[in-house]
Amino acid sequence: MGLVFKVSCKESFCNYHSLTGFTQTLQKMKERAMGTIPADTFALELKQMDGHDAATTAAASERAKWLLSSPNPPAPWQELSSSIKETVCFPAAKNGQPQANRPVLFLQGLFPILKWGRNYKATKFKNDVMAGLTLASLCIPQSIGYANLAKLDPQYGLYTSVVPPLIYALMGSSREIAIGPVAVVSLLLSAMISKLVDPNVDPAAYLRIIFTVTFFTGTFQALFGLFRLGFLIDFLSHAAIVGFMGGAAIVIGLQQLKGLLGLTHFTTKTDVVSVLGAVVKALHEEWYPLNFVLGCSFLIFILTTRFIGRRNKKLFWIPAMAPLFSVILSTLIVYLTKADRHGVKIVKHFKGGLNLSSVHQLNFGGPYVGEAAKIGLICSLIALTEAIAVGRSFASIKGYHLDGNKEMVAMGFMNIVGSLTSCYTATGSFSRTAVNFTAGCETVVSNIVMAITVLISLLLFTRLLYYTPLAILASIILSALPGLIDVNAAYNIWKVDKLDFVVCLGAFFGVLFGSVEIGLLVAVGISFGKIILSSIKPSTEVLGNLPGTDIFCNTVQYPMATKLPGISIFRINSATLCFANANFIRERILKWVADDMEETTKGGIRVMILDMTNVMNIDTSGIHAMEELHKELISQGIELAVANPRWQVISKMKVAKLVDKIGSGWIFFSVADAVDASLHLKMNSC
Amino acid sequence: MGLVFKVSCKESFCNYHSLTGFTQTLQKMKERAMGTIPADTFALELKQMDGHDAATTAAASERAKWLLSSPNPPAPWQELSSSIKETVCFPAAKNGQPQANRPVLFLQGLFPILKWGRNYKATKFKNDVMAGLTLASLCIPQSIGYANLAKLDPQYGLYTSVVPPLIYALMGSSREIAIGPVAVVSLLLSAMISKLVDPNVDPAAYLRIIFTVTFFTGTFQALFGLFRLGFLIDFLSHAAIVGFMGGAAIVIGLQQLKGLLGLTHFTTKTDVVSVLGAVVKALHEEWYPLNFVLGCSFLIFILTTRFIGRRNKKLFWIPAMAPLFSVILSTLIVYLTKADRHGVKIVKHFKGGLNLSSVHQLNFGGPYVGEAAKIGLICSLIALTEAIAVGRSFASIKGYHLDGNKEMVAMGFMNIVGSLTSCYTATGSFSRTAVNFTAGCETVVSNIVMAITVLISLLLFTRLLYYTPLAILASIILSALPGLIDVNAAYNIWKVDKLDFVVCLGAFFGVLFGSVEIGLLVAVGISFGKIILSSIKPSTEVLGNLPGTDIFCNTVQYPMATKLPGISIFRINSATLCFANANFIRERILKWVADDMEETTKGGIRVMILDMTNVMNIDTSGIHAMEELHKELISQGIELAVANPRWQVISKMKVAKLVDKIGSGWIFFSVADAVDASLHLKMNSC
Repeated sequence: MGLVFKVSCKESFCNYHSLTGFTQTLQKMKERAMGTIPADTFALELKQMDGHDAATTAAASERAKWLLSSPNPPAPWQELSSSIKETVCFPAAKNGQPQANRPVLFLQGLFPILKWGRNYKATKFKNDVMAGLTLASLCIPQSIGYANLAKLDPQYGLYTSVVPPLIYALMGSSREIAIGPVAVVSLLLSAMISKLVDPNVDPAAYLRIIFTVTFFTGTFQALFGLFRLGFLIDFLSHAAIVGFMGGAAIVIGLQQLKGLLGLTHFTTKTDVVSVLGAVVKALHEEWYPLNFVLGCSFLIFILTTRFIGRRNKKLFWIPAMAPLFSVILSTLIVYLTKADRHGVKIVKHFKGGLNLSSVHQLNFGGPYVGEAAKIGLICSLIALTEAIAVGRSFASIKGYHLDGNKEMVAMGFMNIVGSLTSCYTATGSFSRTAVNFTAGCETVVSNIVMAITVLISLLLFTRLLYYTPLAILASIILSALPGLIDVNAAYNIWKVDKLDFVVCLGAFFGVLFGSVEIGLLVAVGISFGKIILSSIKPSTEVLGNLPGTDIFCNTVQYPMATKLPGISIFRINSATLCFANANFIRERILKWVADDMEETTKGGIRVMILDMTNVMNIDTSGIHAMEELHKELISQGIELAVANPRWQVISKMKVAKLVDKIGSGWIFFSVADAVDASLHLKMNSC
Repeated sequence: MGLVFKVSCKESFCNYHSLTGFTQTLQKMKERAMGTIPADTFALELKQMDGHDAATTAAASERAKWLLSSPNPPAPWQELSSSIKETVCFPAAKNGQPQANRPVLFLQGLFPILKWGRNYKATKFKNDVMAGLTLASLCIPQSIGYANLAKLDPQYGLYTSVVPPLIYALMGSSREIAIGPVAVVSLLLSAMISKLVDPNVDPAAYLRIIFTVTFFTGTFQALFGLFRLGFLIDFLSHAAIVGFMGGAAIVIGLQQLKGLLGLTHFTTKTDVVSVLGAVVKALHEEWYPLNFVLGCSFLIFILTTRFIGRRNKKLFWIPAMAPLFSVILSTLIVYLTKADRHGVKIVKHFKGGLNLSSVHQLNFGGPYVGEAAKIGLICSLIALTEAIAVGRSFASIKGYHLDGNKEMVAMGFMNIVGSLTSCYTATGSFSRTAVNFTAGCETVVSNIVMAITVLISLLLFTRLLYYTPLAILASIILSALPGLIDVNAAYNIWKVDKLDFVVCLGAFFGVLFGSVEIGLLVAVGISFGKIILSSIKPSTEVLGNLPGTDIFCNTVQYPMATKLPGISIFRINSATLCFANANFIRERILKWVADDMEETTKGGIRVMILDMTNVMNIDTSGIHAMEELHKELISQGIELAVANPRWQVISKMKVAKLVDKIGSGWIFFSVADAVDASLHLKMNSC
């Protein structure tokens, strides 16, 4: 039967011009081979099919004309200027709006409070006050703890919970975000600035660099927003953030061993090996078990309240109040039992009162100004990444859109003003934003309420915090860490994209065993390496015809797609055919053609169709490679047909005279058109 | 009339399910609006068209099923291992060949001379001898000149024209390439090694580093070949090479001012500013006009003979012999006139005889071994780039293919052996290969003839070269430079691809005003920056239907493509939807949708079709962005349809449950299918 089929195939090879004709013929031939139709009917039917596709051919050549005569694509400088216009400039006011309103609109854009403030109602205010008070009760102990993590006196944490939230309330557009110091940024600052100045040796110089870095952070953030460079924070991919946050959480947790064990001397390094080494060394010297007992009991208490809060959503205020309650209770215990005389470390230094101006402390001329700018850049990106991720996820729950660039401007100004008023870098906190949301906040007014509450406690209650044990601060920070380790997200990344998981692991282990910067560098490096690698070694695929259609697709992915005799179709799966991949693609295609030649015994390939649908751009090396490919194919007696070259590609092929070399008759609008023409050629050469 | 059309459009909006139906309906509606068909005929025709496309819908849903149930794509490690297999391993022997022949085939693969040597004939030998002698006459003066450029004694240039060509003759597969020292590599070596050791202060140490670098160069080249890393040389794009060669030629030319002006002291830097500064300074001190007169007259002589050779191709031997003739004549003149006593600088040091072993001079423990390895890496890439470009262009003229990886192994071994026998880095020379080809060489035997001729002159005639003036060597090098400055190629690059021209200029000015390494770094940096930039900000396009077909294409490139009412179609023109571009693309699509909403007054968009034909891969950030896009569109009452997600994309969408979120009914095999389904939906909702 195979023989019969082959013979009839040879006989009728000339009877089709077009793909439709071909598939129909193939069907008829199969029927003939199976013996279901008699020979004379077969011949008659083939005759009928023949010739009724002249219209198709005419349409195809018309389309090829459109392709070849399409206007020039925009020049690179036009693309550049439109891209700059699109990203850098402020979006122009809509045309329909009256001129007079523009300044008002501009102000409303800069200060969203002017817009929503006019519709603000008493019921909303009630909810905001409740949320703000809950927020403050969580914020005060956390701020003190994070200041401790940043190796600053506790009042700086509280300052940072006063000024930045107020500025953000005026300029920000998120309704739920809770502004203040956060764990990761505090770690970043202490880890990187400790390398420049030891805070134990020269706390004043350390503080000056902290403020300078905060100023740089704010400036970078505001500039990113003003120049609409929001895409910069995208360079930290989701996977990198998950890995980085997980690693940072473990590093922060290890740092808390100092407070939890009541150690006096500790390493300034952040990597696991150094920290564990320091702990082991300290355990052999002197440590105070009372600190550990105190810290652990309150940690268990806080975690228990959180468990209760999760089981019953209405009791959300219990975990929110637990840290403040722990602070008050433990302070009372220490005060009453005089435990500080038995080795329990306490806060001691706590300057109350309003925060002072720190304008004179900014330092732009010292030896560390370059380093400070670098740290400011890293902090600005990390802080923005966290804040915008938090803001966006809650905005999408409530169903409104958050403009990343506007948020950046707001964050930038709040940090600039913060750096002038004794605050360190603030951003949106994951854990407190969730509490704010659960507590039913309506607008950013809850931040104002929180700021005022913190301010009042700064004025009135700071003296009471003298006896607060450091172990409690450590346990409060520790209790906030599990939220940063997102095992589920890591598992999902593993499931979806193995290479992304490598990025995640790179960031995680980089932070854990190297340093914060190394973790970030590794993650960004692997991420961009992936992009370059996929450009250097792009995939290519052999296409086959999907029966009954003029669709061509990957023969491996769709086993039902059939190859056409005498025609090889290849698709280049790369957005650019350039120096880095042109030779690789050329050689792979030639290898495939050679393989195909071996497979097809009779005659081999006559036409090689190159589907360039995916190739958006080509450079001179790509043009050279195509020229070479054409030459080498012709020398083997194979015609090269180019299907669907895109706008930039066809225009460059025209300029480089490649169209003339290949022959404009061999350039087609689609693979189907190219196949039709090849079959036609085959018929004519029969 | 516009009104009539609108009304009838509204009336018949529900009458089509499929694209064919739609386009036919549109045609009919136009005819009706023009008044060419009466109202009742119009209604009847619409009725007839309706419903005859149930089969189309069934086929489309069948295709969507194929898409959703396609097998899993190969896992990353499978891709990795197959890619390693493809690139790293030696291609396995063909199955059909008998086992016994394999060692023979392997040896023939390693030493091609075993293959063609058996069919070598006397007529071929005659041609090869003629070509080899012509080559030697050009090679001797050039080798001495390039050794001078590399700041080595002249005999090392001649050594390098003996050993490497012999090794290459055994292992190489190019028939035309002429092996020996070349200008650019000589410049590279002297420029980079002079920074480590000053050749005037410690020539022995300089020589040791030269041999060590040559050894590293050979080792890297052989390893690249053995591990099939041929693609590494592609990282220097065509544009980068054109710019680099042009810049290097000018730098080499400027270096010749030392010999041409007879200067004793000269800068070791290579950038234009330093060199011109040194020349101006030297002109104020002491220089000998006789050198200049001698050098310039012979330069004019050589260039004149070249002009003659170009006009009459048969006289090719005149320009080939001119340098040797110049050397002999000028040496005689100096010897007879005793011009060396009047300031004409002469070669003087010229050790004749066979080259000695330099095994003991290789230095792998010194302080410069790391630097030597780095220089070796750069040299290996530059040397391979030049050799393979030369070899390939002549192979393609003669119509045979050159295996880049095999060539690399041959070049590697010839340099390793060279470094052990007092040779410095050799590669294929542009100018001499052209002479070899024009002189009618048949095989690589011409290289053997050349090597033997050079060897004989080393043994017999070196003493005669004592009085050769240095100015002549300078003029011989200068005369070879115009071939390196390819203004035509630069102009073509400018015409075809403006960004590539920037790469070219970067390399050119980098070499000219910085140094050789800076030029290379700038060129490679810009080249890869281009790839990353196009991934960060990929283009996106709005698609319209090409009348009368089910093809959808860019509405800007093809103005005849029409948008469909109520349906927006976007195509992402990026090979990957990843962290770096996912948010950018999401925001741009949302902006377009918002613009479209404003344009279409009635109802606006109902379905947004995302054509993912070009997106080969997606990462977790990309999946997130699609989820967000879907959410935001749904909140605006718009359905998201995904057309033609590729293999990796659909499999990741399935794993990430994105298919369930979007709904498997909204994922289509092609844009045409998606449009059909959308029109169907529209009809049902009417």
